[in-house]
Amino acid sequence: MPEARFDVIGIGSAIVDILARAGDDFINAHGMVKGTMALCDAARSRFIYDRMGRAIEISGGSAANSMAGIASLGGSPAFIGKVGKDKLGEIFAHDIKVGGVEFFGSLGVQPTATCLILVTPDGQRTMNTYLGACTEVGPDDIDETKIADAHVTYIEGYQWDTPQAKAAIRKATRAAKGAGRQVALSLSDPFVVERHRGDLLDLIRDDVDILFGNEDEIFRMYEAGDLNSAIERLRGAKVLAVMTRGAKGAVVFDGQTTAAVDAAPVAKVVDTTGAGDLFAAGFLFGYTHGRPLLSCARIGAMAAAEIISHMGARPEVPLHELLVKQGL
Amino acid sequence: MPEARFDVIGIGSAIVDILARAGDDFINAHGMVKGTMALCDAARSRFIYDRMGRAIEISGGSAANSMAGIASLGGSPAFIGKVGKDKLGEIFAHDIKVGGVEFFGSLGVQPTATCLILVTPDGQRTMNTYLGACTEVGPDDIDETKIADAHVTYIEGYQWDTPQAKAAIRKATRAAKGAGRQVALSLSDPFVVERHRGDLLDLIRDDVDILFGNEDEIFRMYEAGDLNSAIERLRGAKVLAVMTRGAKGAVVFDGQTTAAVDAAPVAKVVDTTGAGDLFAAGFLFGYTHGRPLLSCARIGAMAAAEIISHMGARPEVPLHELLVKQGL
Repeated sequence: MPEARFDVIGIGSAIVDILARAGDDFINAHGMVKGTMALCDAARSRFIYDRMGRAIEISGGSAANSMAGIASLGGSPAFIGKVGKDKLGEIFAHDIKVGGVEFFGSLGVQPTATCLILVTPDGQRTMNTYLGACTEVGPDDIDETKIADAHVTYIEGYQWDTPQAKAAIRKATRAAKGAGRQVALSLSDPFVVERHRGDLLDLIRDDVDILFGNEDEIFRMYEAGDLNSAIERLRGAKVLAVMTRGAKGAVVFDGQTTAAVDAAPVAKVVDTTGAGDLFAAGFLFGYTHGRPLLSCARIGAMAAAEIISHMGARPEVPLHELLVKQGL
Repeated sequence: MPEARFDVIGIGSAIVDILARAGDDFINAHGMVKGTMALCDAARSRFIYDRMGRAIEISGGSAANSMAGIASLGGSPAFIGKVGKDKLGEIFAHDIKVGGVEFFGSLGVQPTATCLILVTPDGQRTMNTYLGACTEVGPDDIDETKIADAHVTYIEGYQWDTPQAKAAIRKATRAAKGAGRQVALSLSDPFVVERHRGDLLDLIRDDVDILFGNEDEIFRMYEAGDLNSAIERLRGAKVLAVMTRGAKGAVVFDGQTTAAVDAAPVAKVVDTTGAGDLFAAGFLFGYTHGRPLLSCARIGAMAAAEIISHMGARPEVPLHELLVKQGL
């Protein structure tokens, strides 16, 4: 690969997570679908917040978590996103910068986005996102020279929920391809796939080199009922597909060969928030550092295991130390 | 004891903690004294924040932590404090209310207080507090009927750093004694003792029934070089003294008898923030529920052990469940 300033540049929602423990009854009583992300307006967000339990605040956002993970592994990531001119915006900007991510952020007029995350006793997370300033991300936020200066441009599927952001993404992916760089897309959420399947299939066909998703998301995207039929359809999609399977590990398919890795062991699953984001971080760190695909997936599994062992989607320990410790 | 609406009413700083891991070199390079609390103005707070690592935000404040602990144990606490009209103020108010504490809060004109907490690899915490709206707490915030409706009024020594608060405390302790209630004081920090020793000795003499402090704080307060001489001097102070000793457990002295408890076992000390606050919570829960002193201290040790096993000074698991599980 030609030289680049950044391993990966992520474009995504700049969110501060507000995490609390909750029972399954709370999820059901408030009409949430466990394990998924629902968008909500300011009023709904306030309604849920007033009823949820004692919380902790940790910077989040899917692509931002991935970039923080790459930095923690010792890579060189950048992030493009928009925060509000408020305390949570300061918190987001602080955390991403001091975490080693080059932050190309700008200020929106709306408040910084928040994600109310309910963590049930099984460690599963259910998310309620108020997008706020994130909805203001548009083509003007994409500086093509920065995109050209990254080996991989990384897009979160969540971005598809705001019309302005779609145009920004298209501008970014075109710029990346034009500069001979690669594009990675994370499907983010089964409902995102349901809402935007056609658009996302077009994007994948035109510009995507690496596709991240969990089983549910990939199956829905390719209308597959099982792993074999999903792989058959991915063959036609001509992408490097990285499919996470929770406790069953992950499968990587490069159009010809399928490689599988086990999930890395975890003493106790505390909170699955960020599991997919950190898997992608580990994979892309390996990928942009010339590792074989199986090694990339193993680093992904290691990073995911760290993140689900505690609350929040940003690593608690420097991942580059784990990398050395685990001989990866 | 005559009936009361609250077991304990706490008066203290309404603070949101901003916690990050740091090496000892960071503590030294920034002129901090490890394990203590330093006050800082907005500029110093910003200076430290810009240089400290990725953080998480969790509601804190010494007396507020203790009240949250009492609620988690199943007790009926209340809290008086002042937040700013901002996002962190909302977060503080949300967390204390949904945690089961009756919050008699009001809005100041300054921003909500923050405490930048650096947690070193040994789990020790070093704190930098910007008091903001907390400096506006004054006698007008003390409603004597609410004080009279609590078995114990609990004061944090930190309050002594703001002149207005001193007057508020004196009003509260006088009201408590006038209503035949008890007053508890936490010494909070060795530097607080150094700064306000004379004032605090007067307060103890006049109004305090229960005194909380760690070894260092109590030794400084009574100019004692060892446990025996400290106990000898406490005899003259005519208070129930509860002295925490870190990994060595705690000692309770009621003026005649000394009782000691071991520290409760912890797999790994992650962050000592709130250890003293939660010991006080456990002790006061037991005390206001008619438990013998040794049992009070055991509940304190249990609550302290929970809080140091994770980041932040608010319990992660319901303490009343631990109480049952551990047969306390």
